Amino acid sequence: MKVAITEMLELDAVSTKTIEKLGFEIIRYPLETVYDGNADVIVGMHLPKETIPHDLKFAQLLSAGYDHINIELYKEAGIPIANGRGMYSIPIAEYCLAYILNHYKSIPGYLKQQAEHKWARLNQNKALDTAKVLILGTGSIAQETAKRLNAFNAQVDGVNSNGRSIEYFSQCFALEALDSHLPNYDIVICTLPSNDATYHIMDSNQFGLMKNDAIFINIGRGACVNLEGLMTVLDTNLAGVVLDVFETEPLDANHPLWNHPKATITPHASFETSKINDYRLDIVMHNLKRFAEQTPLMNRII
Amino acid sequence: MKVAITEMLELDAVSTKTIEKLGFEIIRYPLETVYDGNADVIVGMHLPKETIPHDLKFAQLLSAGYDHINIELYKEAGIPIANGRGMYSIPIAEYCLAYILNHYKSIPGYLKQQAEHKWARLNQNKALDTAKVLILGTGSIAQETAKRLNAFNAQVDGVNSNGRSIEYFSQCFALEALDSHLPNYDIVICTLPSNDATYHIMDSNQFGLMKNDAIFINIGRGACVNLEGLMTVLDTNLAGVVLDVFETEPLDANHPLWNHPKATITPHASFETSKINDYRLDIVMHNLKRFAEQTPLMNRII
Repeated sequence: MKVAITEMLELDAVSTKTIEKLGFEIIRYPLETVYDGNADVIVGMHLPKETIPHDLKFAQLLSAGYDHINIELYKEAGIPIANGRGMYSIPIAEYCLAYILNHYKSIPGYLKQQAEHKWARLNQNKALDTAKVLILGTGSIAQETAKRLNAFNAQVDGVNSNGRSIEYFSQCFALEALDSHLPNYDIVICTLPSNDATYHIMDSNQFGLMKNDAIFINIGRGACVNLEGLMTVLDTNLAGVVLDVFETEPLDANHPLWNHPKATITPHASFETSKINDYRLDIVMHNLKRFAEQTPLMNRII
Repeated sequence: MKVAITEMLELDAVSTKTIEKLGFEIIRYPLETVYDGNADVIVGMHLPKETIPHDLKFAQLLSAGYDHINIELYKEAGIPIANGRGMYSIPIAEYCLAYILNHYKSIPGYLKQQAEHKWARLNQNKALDTAKVLILGTGSIAQETAKRLNAFNAQVDGVNSNGRSIEYFSQCFALEALDSHLPNYDIVICTLPSNDATYHIMDSNQFGLMKNDAIFINIGRGACVNLEGLMTVLDTNLAGVVLDVFETEPLDANHPLWNHPKATITPHASFETSKINDYRLDIVMHNLKRFAEQTPLMNRII
């Protein structure tokens, strides 16, 4: 049994031995390439788009998103694919808290004062204690974020398709009722995937409904936000936006958002962490074990 | 019965009515002044240093520290004083998490890139998940900080006088064993008060014992750190220091620390929060009620 594993994933001696003990021969292939040789299992960011490699029985993606995969091709052939759901939830939750607190504790203002050797209190700091937070989406990223916000005594509500209750959330609302709830929150975080129901779900109307001193964070997908709509509102409403994802990436170097005093822009980097290999390896090892032992795979998308 | 309350503390209609119902006549006195008129109770930042106001039976400080109060004078006269312990614990805990995450998520680096309209991942972000944190002091500020760190899956250990166990801490060590533990932590936070046992407890030896990529935060008292000792180590050890308090405040505008790339300096502002009046009022109301009802005062220092 052969498993082809991208070199993006580092394998230590223990993991290598464990995989071999499961009965696999390990093939490594270079970063940023697509493996199209023979293997029973492929572990990688990409998969061949035209023809399915001979012998393939299962593919494990290292990404949560799979808009770049020819899902239909694999579906028709009955080849199961699992994605990386959960691999990046913890670093993205840490990112959300980092940028909320960056704003709430006036850190850019204090860094500027330090550069001027200026000792003066800004008296602008906000309390995250008892702040009201609405998270769009209640999946793995949202739950890790809500769990951390709960420790700050924030009230965390969620939005999902039908308003079902989810751990770590005080209450959840259905997506269709979003507009009626937006005016009540100090912080709104979008963790939504990209699909027909979420396309431009945050547009000028929605940003206009938010509190004047609220902040908005997007670590879901760029297409959930209509950037033009946001731009028409940002001068007069909201205290800040933190955007890590955009409909077109990279964001055009001439886009006016780069210079907007209320905007914080990061380059689709919220998942970055020193532990990224550990998180990836954790899911890969679980699923190689399940594949070898013929028990149900986790994170199956088809 | 009269209570003199500094105008630093805002009183809403409900609080005013509650205080009056307890049997108090309220006297307000200006910010930054010391009240030396007649009153049964004084609520303020300062107290007269030379003579105790006639009729005074209890004083409630709005500060946690009381090195600026002539404690001996009041002790001899048997006048109880309560301090503001706990008033600032939540905002200071939020400050600690904010500056830890600011460092862990490379926020200054990303802000710099945004100013240059540059879309590029820095790949320097660290994981707070499973990071090892040592908090010097295990009082109210330390506990609020540890509680929040626990939600990030950090391992939080504490240091106190005798190593007794405290909620939110995995384990606690005695202060005398500090040096043997410092090499094991990614983050060290000093919340200690200023006294003989804590004077310059963090000096060149201690900073030298810390991990090369560790960060140190001081939101306790400035005198806990020997700044000269830190300066001898900072070029070659530690990834960063966040200092909100200094032995001499304000920090001299010519001090080399202002420009040090590893240093973040804030002007004794970690307690700042939009909820500060709520936190102050909470303790003041509790103690005015206790005084009026002759039940034991909270936060008594003498």
